[in-house]
Amino acid sequence: MTETIKTDVVIVGAGPVGLFAVFELGLLDIKAHVVDILDRPGGQCAELYPEKPIYDIPGLPMVTGQGLTDNLMEQIKPFGATFHFSEIIASLEKTADDRFLLTTDAGTRFDTKVVVIAAGGGSFQPKKPPIEGVEAFEEKSVHYAVRKMDVFRGKRVLIVGGGDSALDWTLNLAPVAERVTLMHRRDAFRAAPDSVNKMRKLVDEGVIDLALGQVTELIGKDGVLQAVKAKLADGSTHEIAADAMLPFFGLTMKLGPIADWGLNLEENLVPVDTEKFETTTPGIYAIGDINSYPGKLKLILSGFHEGALMAQAAARRINPDRKIVFQYTTSSTSLQKKLGVA
Amino acid sequence: MTETIKTDVVIVGAGPVGLFAVFELGLLDIKAHVVDILDRPGGQCAELYPEKPIYDIPGLPMVTGQGLTDNLMEQIKPFGATFHFSEIIASLEKTADDRFLLTTDAGTRFDTKVVVIAAGGGSFQPKKPPIEGVEAFEEKSVHYAVRKMDVFRGKRVLIVGGGDSALDWTLNLAPVAERVTLMHRRDAFRAAPDSVNKMRKLVDEGVIDLALGQVTELIGKDGVLQAVKAKLADGSTHEIAADAMLPFFGLTMKLGPIADWGLNLEENLVPVDTEKFETTTPGIYAIGDINSYPGKLKLILSGFHEGALMAQAAARRINPDRKIVFQYTTSSTSLQKKLGVA
Repeated sequence: MTETIKTDVVIVGAGPVGLFAVFELGLLDIKAHVVDILDRPGGQCAELYPEKPIYDIPGLPMVTGQGLTDNLMEQIKPFGATFHFSEIIASLEKTADDRFLLTTDAGTRFDTKVVVIAAGGGSFQPKKPPIEGVEAFEEKSVHYAVRKMDVFRGKRVLIVGGGDSALDWTLNLAPVAERVTLMHRRDAFRAAPDSVNKMRKLVDEGVIDLALGQVTELIGKDGVLQAVKAKLADGSTHEIAADAMLPFFGLTMKLGPIADWGLNLEENLVPVDTEKFETTTPGIYAIGDINSYPGKLKLILSGFHEGALMAQAAARRINPDRKIVFQYTTSSTSLQKKLGVA
Repeated sequence: MTETIKTDVVIVGAGPVGLFAVFELGLLDIKAHVVDILDRPGGQCAELYPEKPIYDIPGLPMVTGQGLTDNLMEQIKPFGATFHFSEIIASLEKTADDRFLLTTDAGTRFDTKVVVIAAGGGSFQPKKPPIEGVEAFEEKSVHYAVRKMDVFRGKRVLIVGGGDSALDWTLNLAPVAERVTLMHRRDAFRAAPDSVNKMRKLVDEGVIDLALGQVTELIGKDGVLQAVKAKLADGSTHEIAADAMLPFFGLTMKLGPIADWGLNLEENLVPVDTEKFETTTPGIYAIGDINSYPGKLKLILSGFHEGALMAQAAARRINPDRKIVFQYTTSSTSLQKKLGVA
């Protein structure tokens, strides 16, 4: 078991609102740990519309989701947040001394004074293939993400899908696995052309297999896969030997474990006040699209405001004896020193 | 008397928050008139720190006050707001049909359904010179701004001050007035070097006079100036003939006429709710530094959020029968058409 990380703040979600919370907390001398199920910062902005223009960020007439993410990462750089990507907070419990113990699905543990939920519409989770009984094979033989390539060393791996994830892992696992088979329902791919070319070359060279069709059944025992039955594009049915299956069918948004944290959810949203943006559990705050209050609009710019007010309240909770002097970045040398510009 | 302008919204204040309110109202098909006592947009950003960096606008790691103003002016361009600069709303009265009649000090009149106060710390008003009885000469002979140069044609004009306004008007009025005298307490100027050089050239050529000293008394009758008494830098006292005096001693922030609008001010702030950012008078909203509510921080980013929620409430008041569909600029073709990008 890894050591528990003791900290002041854990921010759940590295979308724009979670990122800007790092900034507002940083101005008040509070360092944050940030956890996100995606493998990079930006949340929906990075996952759903990295290249689409956004027009309503005040002062930025046009910015892409990725551009906004990059700007925010630059803006928060002085505050040295620690990021934990590709992890989700699986459990939260309150301790006797008014702190919170959080554990991620990867086993990371936090002991924190404040939790900031900036989880947007929830967590992006992999879409599951419509195969009966797939759950029984999950974790052991069916994987929706690759945490360690070594797990697949010497194995017969079936990768299913036609997007970038499927193609990238086909190329990455080809030299590691005993044999890689890529299965997609048709001979057209929504992935980077360069990856597709590389994949076709490996097929031509006989290094990997390409099968056009769909998995209809998993064959195995106690979660250990032996083969899959597949209906191929020509109508025939085949059995393909496989020790592991990696379906990459895209992501879907789910609220996730937050539902179990006792926050009196209303329609999957977390009710908060508009002074501190605190939930019904003192010490747990919720900002951005995940919260609700009278007048709430799911706008990124509102999440920024909520983060600023949350930070003041969190600072008072973390350092109850310290007086907070409200200052401006334009005029305060002390804030400018924190920002590394004075 | 000029014709009364009938409109949906008058925004009081063209600082960043007033400007962004134009954007949020525009997305909901509402056109705004914007009134500001300054002669240009930007409010405090333009007046107090046009070249100072601001670090806490989310998504803009560093931007100057002028840069932010320029960005916002570009962002709101599609919504065709009408600006009324160098004017202040002098009076506000409620009409029987739930509208408001506003009149500016320049005589502009508005008949509007909604008033949005985005007046920041109040209005920038000229600092008055410490001369006894100066009030009696104001409007007639003592002017703190130049609205029409022609007023000074053929007159003996005394300009007092050492900053950009004093120098600019010295240069501009030199060819119009009978004679211009620039008076400043010492032979050093805080104005653009180029203006100072031009001024000195005119003095050398005998076109204008430069006097180092301070006005101690105004001589005249019924508000009509004839001369001023001045104590010069060498200790001597002189009388300088003058029909008009223009003191440019900088600006100071005053709440101004808003104090008389019956808004239950608390310490010069306007209390609002956090759902609509509406004042105690329905139809009058207050956003940005001028308002107060539990948790309020005087941050530009908070004013942006307040403007977005205000716009929804204002739209319902203006078009009570129209259903507002909440949309995103990233995905809505209808919003993108309004923005002129689709």
